[in-house]
Amino acid sequence: MNYRMIIRFIGNILLFEALLLCFPFFVSLAYKEGLYFSYLLPIGLLVGLGLLSKLFKPLHKEIYIREGFIITALSWLLLSLFGSLPFFISGEISNLFDAVFETVSGFTTTGSTILDNVEGLSRSLLLWRSLTQWIGGMGILVFALAILPETDARSMYIIKAESPGPQVGKLVSRVRLTARILYGIYIALTVILFLLLLVKMPAFDSVCHALSTAGTGGFGIKNNSVAYYNSFYIEIVITIFMLLFGVNFTIYYLLLIGHWKDVLKSEELRAYLTLFLGSTLLITINLLSSGTSDSMGEALRHSAFQTSSLMTTTGYNTVDFNLWPSFSKWILIILMICGGMAGSTAGGIKISRILIQAKTVFKEIKYSVNPRRVSTLTFERKPLEPGVAKEVSAFVLAYVSLLLVGCLLISLDGKDLLSNFTACIASLSNVGPGLGSVGPLGNFASYSWFSKIVLSFLMVSGRLEIFPILILFAPKTWKK
Amino acid sequence: MNYRMIIRFIGNILLFEALLLCFPFFVSLAYKEGLYFSYLLPIGLLVGLGLLSKLFKPLHKEIYIREGFIITALSWLLLSLFGSLPFFISGEISNLFDAVFETVSGFTTTGSTILDNVEGLSRSLLLWRSLTQWIGGMGILVFALAILPETDARSMYIIKAESPGPQVGKLVSRVRLTARILYGIYIALTVILFLLLLVKMPAFDSVCHALSTAGTGGFGIKNNSVAYYNSFYIEIVITIFMLLFGVNFTIYYLLLIGHWKDVLKSEELRAYLTLFLGSTLLITINLLSSGTSDSMGEALRHSAFQTSSLMTTTGYNTVDFNLWPSFSKWILIILMICGGMAGSTAGGIKISRILIQAKTVFKEIKYSVNPRRVSTLTFERKPLEPGVAKEVSAFVLAYVSLLLVGCLLISLDGKDLLSNFTACIASLSNVGPGLGSVGPLGNFASYSWFSKIVLSFLMVSGRLEIFPILILFAPKTWKK
Repeated sequence: MNYRMIIRFIGNILLFEALLLCFPFFVSLAYKEGLYFSYLLPIGLLVGLGLLSKLFKPLHKEIYIREGFIITALSWLLLSLFGSLPFFISGEISNLFDAVFETVSGFTTTGSTILDNVEGLSRSLLLWRSLTQWIGGMGILVFALAILPETDARSMYIIKAESPGPQVGKLVSRVRLTARILYGIYIALTVILFLLLLVKMPAFDSVCHALSTAGTGGFGIKNNSVAYYNSFYIEIVITIFMLLFGVNFTIYYLLLIGHWKDVLKSEELRAYLTLFLGSTLLITINLLSSGTSDSMGEALRHSAFQTSSLMTTTGYNTVDFNLWPSFSKWILIILMICGGMAGSTAGGIKISRILIQAKTVFKEIKYSVNPRRVSTLTFERKPLEPGVAKEVSAFVLAYVSLLLVGCLLISLDGKDLLSNFTACIASLSNVGPGLGSVGPLGNFASYSWFSKIVLSFLMVSGRLEIFPILILFAPKTWKK
Repeated sequence: MNYRMIIRFIGNILLFEALLLCFPFFVSLAYKEGLYFSYLLPIGLLVGLGLLSKLFKPLHKEIYIREGFIITALSWLLLSLFGSLPFFISGEISNLFDAVFETVSGFTTTGSTILDNVEGLSRSLLLWRSLTQWIGGMGILVFALAILPETDARSMYIIKAESPGPQVGKLVSRVRLTARILYGIYIALTVILFLLLLVKMPAFDSVCHALSTAGTGGFGIKNNSVAYYNSFYIEIVITIFMLLFGVNFTIYYLLLIGHWKDVLKSEELRAYLTLFLGSTLLITINLLSSGTSDSMGEALRHSAFQTSSLMTTTGYNTVDFNLWPSFSKWILIILMICGGMAGSTAGGIKISRILIQAKTVFKEIKYSVNPRRVSTLTFERKPLEPGVAKEVSAFVLAYVSLLLVGCLLISLDGKDLLSNFTACIASLSNVGPGLGSVGPLGNFASYSWFSKIVLSFLMVSGRLEIFPILILFAPKTWKK
């Protein structure tokens, strides 16, 4: 185990967080909020620890999968702890568990909140919440790799640990360039969204919403989320951009280099769009036939927004879908579990895994009828790399197991099963709101500190796709 | 495809059902219920069709997996349809969908009912309900194989299709003898249970409860199930026997031939008992600490009974666990999903699959850290046969998928999500009651005919362990 390299890398991450905290600090200065100390103390701490880490000179620069996973997991834990300090020190979130929960929810792009009254937060803290979602969406380690001098080809393992999806492809052969292209596309899309929102929103609101949407995070800055603006234009823009950020970023890269045909043939993209259109249609029909919506237009507007919001695991809302009929609610639950495309900023199991999984199951069924016929699984018109199908199955089953165990642990609080069940799905898939008492109008404040730790654990597990977190608990990981 | 052999086999099954129907017919005569026609018409139909099938002389006796699956699936569908006729013709269940639902629930050993007032049924029909559960528990095709002259060594495929568990082993080399040993143990245990119940129950009640318990079915003959008798003795006997029938019958065979050591070393048995004891303990503590139960004794009595009942997927109840705290209810839901041991009469995913699955996931996690280390999965101290781990994963994922889709379809009725979710788990795992409106005091009557078909489909899929049912829908199955 290359401990020195791990410390060095994490030290850099802490310095980055200090840099990030400067943004809300300056905003705080601009609005004269008097929260200087709330930012300067954590910034000082982070810079101090970051510089301290420079004392550990690595003997060699090689890192392996194990180190990649450990760097990722520890970075995320530390980021969340230090990131919660501004909330706590300012006293605007007076309970430390709540502050950590809110920060984890930010970095993991979940968007669950313990705040009753979001509008009561200082502007700089609102910006910090949204900024954590933006950096958490594409990944802070990927960001570090984009800026740091090339360490080693093996730092690909870090991208692999932090990026969502079963098969992480390098876009180009060099890791740093891959990371830069990803962030380039990400920044460009975020800026376009910001400009489009500016048409109907104040500048500050546009910045926050652009950041939260890009990370498919879903932290709103109003108590009733996007419903506050009651603007058809804003809802359409956000619906479309949530969908766009739920798309695999490789697709954009292929578009940039002119490979249109590959994009059109993408199985995952087709399935993703089909799922969106199909769900929107079914929910629209259900809302109309059940009398929940009066007009076709209203039904379509709400169903498209909620479908896009929950399948990309953003979690904004324009309506209290707690009041929707069971059929629509169950579709939303399924969408929350499925999530967006691999390699996007969305959470959930991911469409590509669902496709590979479905193919694996059908293959097994065929095999049970005719064991002598050997067939190969293909995905995106290529034979699946050996081992991927197994890894995908293991992932889905680990997801289901964590869901069941998480539910069991938080049900100690005695809340109703639907709230617990959807709270766990919302955390594990990084969605944000669930149903019942954690629905669009509710929040997570009433859970105990123990449940908040469990849910935070689920959020981080979901964001880092389970394995990097679970292996921290395997004794073998820490052996020589 | 050997159609003639399929027809011949199914013809035999229909004749067996005619034979089975004679039991309630004679009971009906004895109690002078005036339901002769309700039994004689279906018996006549079954005998007629059975004899008709004898006209199809098979050209050869070979059958393969495909035929085995088709025979099993079709037999179960026809058994349920004909078996529902006595309920329907007698007018005691006036809706045909309800009658079919009740019969499917019987044969699949689910025990869900659409009856508001079970006590209103004629005694012969109560016996018929319990008898379907007894024969469904061990399997009517296994029964046929036990009696029929040996057809072919390949009829093992039928045992494989009908028997629960990932790896079905022949106890002895000959199929007929295996089937006979299984039924021999089954009958012996049922008779012992009957005699023990006779101590505190009327003879008729003892017969019905012995049959329903043996099949881990759970059809009671009183409106409030086993709670009616309010007898500590009866509850202990039933708790123990539900557990016994949830044990892999291979264990009993090993005991009979004196292989004690193998039994003690059985991983699945240990996990099964640990799960029972652990869940009972946790629920007891939860009931006491939440104030649901006043005394340790009462809490232990109810928790042991409900744990045994739901983990063996029997579904009897002595208490309305709908009123239990969330933590206890979620444990029950997890137990319902897990189910009993493979090769028992219990439903659910099965403990052996859960164990193999957990090992597969841990192996994948280890593999993701160190891809160069190759390790072999073992189960019951033997290396796992190639393909079994994959099949198990596919099964568990098919289970989860059916659960999600089933829930979606029945939520069209507009019932609350908890009722729908647990109704689907209860059906797919062949448990019986769920929570909410399908809890211990509720029933399935208020679901629409469409939902009843969906739930019936889930029950049959659960009992035959999904694949034999799903492959009926694969076009390839029907090709030459």
